[in-house]
Amino acid sequence: MNGIRRLAHDLNISIGTVSRALNGKPDVSDETRKRVLEAAAAIGYVPNQAGRSLRQGKTGVIGFMMQSGSEITGDGDVFFMSVFDGVQTVCARHQLDLVVLLCSSEEDPDAYLQRVVARGFVDGLIISATKRHDHRIQFLAERNIPFIALGRSLTEAGHPWLDLDFEGMAQTGVDRLVQKGHRRIGVFAPIDDINLGFVFVDSYRAALERHGIAFDPDLVFRAYPNDRGGHEIGERVAAMPEDKRPTGFVLTNEMLTVGLYRGLYDCGIKPGADIAIIGRHSTNSQYLNPKLTCFYLSLRDLGIELAEGLLATMPAYAAHYPHGVIRRVVPLTLIEGGSDQPAKG
Amino acid sequence: MNGIRRLAHDLNISIGTVSRALNGKPDVSDETRKRVLEAAAAIGYVPNQAGRSLRQGKTGVIGFMMQSGSEITGDGDVFFMSVFDGVQTVCARHQLDLVVLLCSSEEDPDAYLQRVVARGFVDGLIISATKRHDHRIQFLAERNIPFIALGRSLTEAGHPWLDLDFEGMAQTGVDRLVQKGHRRIGVFAPIDDINLGFVFVDSYRAALERHGIAFDPDLVFRAYPNDRGGHEIGERVAAMPEDKRPTGFVLTNEMLTVGLYRGLYDCGIKPGADIAIIGRHSTNSQYLNPKLTCFYLSLRDLGIELAEGLLATMPAYAAHYPHGVIRRVVPLTLIEGGSDQPAKG
Repeated sequence: MNGIRRLAHDLNISIGTVSRALNGKPDVSDETRKRVLEAAAAIGYVPNQAGRSLRQGKTGVIGFMMQSGSEITGDGDVFFMSVFDGVQTVCARHQLDLVVLLCSSEEDPDAYLQRVVARGFVDGLIISATKRHDHRIQFLAERNIPFIALGRSLTEAGHPWLDLDFEGMAQTGVDRLVQKGHRRIGVFAPIDDINLGFVFVDSYRAALERHGIAFDPDLVFRAYPNDRGGHEIGERVAAMPEDKRPTGFVLTNEMLTVGLYRGLYDCGIKPGADIAIIGRHSTNSQYLNPKLTCFYLSLRDLGIELAEGLLATMPAYAAHYPHGVIRRVVPLTLIEGGSDQPAKG
Repeated sequence: MNGIRRLAHDLNISIGTVSRALNGKPDVSDETRKRVLEAAAAIGYVPNQAGRSLRQGKTGVIGFMMQSGSEITGDGDVFFMSVFDGVQTVCARHQLDLVVLLCSSEEDPDAYLQRVVARGFVDGLIISATKRHDHRIQFLAERNIPFIALGRSLTEAGHPWLDLDFEGMAQTGVDRLVQKGHRRIGVFAPIDDINLGFVFVDSYRAALERHGIAFDPDLVFRAYPNDRGGHEIGERVAAMPEDKRPTGFVLTNEMLTVGLYRGLYDCGIKPGADIAIIGRHSTNSQYLNPKLTCFYLSLRDLGIELAEGLLATMPAYAAHYPHGVIRRVVPLTLIEGGSDQPAKG
């Protein structure tokens, strides 16, 4: 007797019910599902997933595609682990497993994604680090593969997405520093074509204009989005003539902020006092001295919303998440620290 | 004409050669493989992985199982991203993809692993956070599933493993602090049954004995291995009578060290000067003030060795890695910082 037949026999329920319970279908009572899963565990029954995937196109696995590699590790790791925590909370409700698909920064993300899809082991995908024009969005939409993007893009497929409110961070950050007497406000921009860089710099520019401050391209610091990039910015600032230096920074990257603190310290410039800094909250930024004035959002809640937004587009789970296609900019809250002192003189 | 037939026809080579090239078999020349992969990309050919998996038991995916969840995130994220970088370097040589299997701290790792294996989408596994007695080792060995463990265990299956030299860190750390006049040396121990906690505390105890210092259980601080855990230890130390406090710490966890620095600062105790600290190198610890005296190893190299050790046990790749079963403790190098000042008075 194979596994499913034996379970049906032992539990005195139909083979179809056993199969639906094992496959996480919604039309099985929680009690029955529990009995089936316990009995399956007791006899050591493990469904053959490769066969199941071919028959049903269902693997029970959600993939989260993120960039990896030493250049962006600093950024990736402090941010994503908390987001994963939220995604997993939702996955656990449906016996789904989350796997993280690491696309090396040396690889073409489009080719990588095609390979992931070809391997056929994920039912749905969360993609991140969206580019200004992102072929992955078209690729997935054309194949009707359920997905949600963390990050906006000019590529439009009516797909669900969530993104941080980079406009709000730019506006609030600039407003706050201008109120404190700062006129030369620096920002960081990534060196690649990730969309958030464009959104943030555009909003920064608009915020300056509202205050009648001319945009100075020398105050847009391009670097790798990690601690070394921040350290380099600190050195570049120290090398500028004093009257050309920014007197304040608005930054959206956590590890870069940590590196900038150290870079400034190493060059004899006191972060917070000599150069004001407004950044983004993270475990690391909490331990900076002086404490960072920063924008906060719950990354775990972001992960929960991402997962729910993905499941809402998957027929097997949509009934649980009837809110339809999510497309939302998530606001952040400013937490006051000691790192954004008024401009001197 | 299906994909493989068409590629063979277009390139004027045999169907078998096309198939072996696409499947990453070693008996195809690099030049031929390159031609096949380019032609496959040009016609948009993607092999059906679910079908291939059933036929060959090969998915082209290596899984890295790690714990996740807010309790251990602080630890996991700073360490693992660099290790992944090394693993991916090796995977890329063989057109293998690395996926990270996140086992929530609320889940039973044994049940999680059984589900991963049942889903059948990985060809080989790297497991981490090995426990003193670890059922996963038996489970995988009994099923002949290729795997390597990051971390030792009392569970023995003749399997390959790599581990950090926790004995060496305990000995060198204690020796160094004793030479600087410290007698009350504190350590951190995890609250769960992860193996490294036992190895480290045993070696710490042995090192104290060699110096004729009695072991004091009050100086073994149990906490979650993250920044909050470190902050709590700082508060606990501050609450101790001054003559009972440790005058120095040897720590093996990066984020915990960052939290301890802040915890001590917040209680008016200067890390480095009032209480000496020797820790483990990480991106975060580089930015501590005073700079951390710490043990360093290349996590990327560790990832490379892990991946090579895994592939050495997989018949399809073993010819490339003829070193057999790896079982090795990886030594660390001490980097001098300013955080381990001599004991006062």
